[in-house]
Amino acid sequence: MILVNGAAADSVAATDRGLAYGDGVFRTLLSKRGKPIAWARHYRKLARDCAALELECPSEELLARELARALDPAGAQVAKIIVTRGSGERGYAPPRKPSPTRIVMAGAVPEYPREFSHTGVEVAICRTRYAFQPRLAGVKHLNRLENVLARAEWSDPGIPEGLVMDDDGHIIGGTHSNLFLVETGALVTPGLARCGVAGVSRERVMEAAAAQGIACREEPVSQARLLRAETVLLVNSVIGVWPIRACAGHRWAAGEWAGRVREWLDERG
Amino acid sequence: MILVNGAAADSVAATDRGLAYGDGVFRTLLSKRGKPIAWARHYRKLARDCAALELECPSEELLARELARALDPAGAQVAKIIVTRGSGERGYAPPRKPSPTRIVMAGAVPEYPREFSHTGVEVAICRTRYAFQPRLAGVKHLNRLENVLARAEWSDPGIPEGLVMDDDGHIIGGTHSNLFLVETGALVTPGLARCGVAGVSRERVMEAAAAQGIACREEPVSQARLLRAETVLLVNSVIGVWPIRACAGHRWAAGEWAGRVREWLDERG
Repeated sequence: MILVNGAAADSVAATDRGLAYGDGVFRTLLSKRGKPIAWARHYRKLARDCAALELECPSEELLARELARALDPAGAQVAKIIVTRGSGERGYAPPRKPSPTRIVMAGAVPEYPREFSHTGVEVAICRTRYAFQPRLAGVKHLNRLENVLARAEWSDPGIPEGLVMDDDGHIIGGTHSNLFLVETGALVTPGLARCGVAGVSRERVMEAAAAQGIACREEPVSQARLLRAETVLLVNSVIGVWPIRACAGHRWAAGEWAGRVREWLDERG
Repeated sequence: MILVNGAAADSVAATDRGLAYGDGVFRTLLSKRGKPIAWARHYRKLARDCAALELECPSEELLARELARALDPAGAQVAKIIVTRGSGERGYAPPRKPSPTRIVMAGAVPEYPREFSHTGVEVAICRTRYAFQPRLAGVKHLNRLENVLARAEWSDPGIPEGLVMDDDGHIIGGTHSNLFLVETGALVTPGLARCGVAGVSRERVMEAAAAQGIACREEPVSQARLLRAETVLLVNSVIGVWPIRACAGHRWAAGEWAGRVREWLDERG
């Protein structure tokens, strides 16, 4: 089911700036029995991302109500929320009185093999690199061609994710997931001040680690550092946690960390 | 009038990848009495840009027919063509069998003061910088948040354009125009191998200069070099040519070059 500005619809205006320029932001999240998981965090992130584009964010109450209408009250679903700057006159200048478009949609949860979460996944290393754009770094905006180009580099269905480097050759994350290394009992995740998307699951892992007294540092991750790590984990709101079991000829045994981080993410909020 | 895949419509699917990811390209061009100006070049550029995203480009005949339907046969209009990768399953991976969306729309020509073309324009210098992304440089794709952010930096209606630098501090062009400097009788335009959009008017100016035996080089343009130039010109398919008369406290007198370049662009194709 799709709601556009609160009305059941399957389309948006052809003049919407989300389409014309990618002038908007989005969230993808999991729901169980009609309840979006970690909703308060997702809303905070949506509001922060709207603010980064000086875009008016719909209220939390309004979006929560629309999610409740769109989501199946029985099973698990993936919800997506898009907020754009709406339609405007031709040209890049934001309209003087923008009328944002909000789209709330619910769909099926992708069916990944159970092994992905437990024994882990093989990942590609992409040639496409993320450009340094500090004005947009961290924000989940609608300009996602770099992710599309990176994801188009391989088609083997047995490889569900690829790692993407920045222009300096440091690994930033997967095309649709954030990355954590385990190094001698501490966590390391790439800093995202110059590119990449700072996802809600990444934030949840960082906070849970802090609450448990486990160090978690934002540091550059070279390919050599990745391959030396004891464990490498990918996280996002839909997949949860995937340990990496193979990358660039290197293999990792399943360890205890995937389960530990999964528990953190399974806790409410 | 708007045609979506050949049918009069004012909306596109909410699941279109053009909206979700900016996964598509576009063209903006001028028409006179129902005829798009420099159509063959615009189509070639559209086809090249589609190829850069491995996107199937609609045929020239089909788009020309749809433009003829959409455009007013009497006056002048601005036409816009958008080609996206169409709707697909959730996720960045391009669909196995994509069904591209084409949107052809016609609208009013923006009314700029006549002085803009003759005595010239005052331009801002934007703080937003273009990131280096060689995979997308030159392509007029739908990921245009950098242009939106740059254009949002000023609101004075007397300033119709702003210059944008790359991450090295070299000027790449306007938010929606390409840039030429005149230096001792030769033309210089910023190279666009790492960022920026290589527009059709830029290509036409470069070819016309070559045909006239006037040197035109692609070189880095620092702010100091810009301010030293005899004449600075902005070009695009809708504005034609605007000389810059004021920027960063510097002023230029109207010279002969704007008129010369306008003649080149007024010639067919």
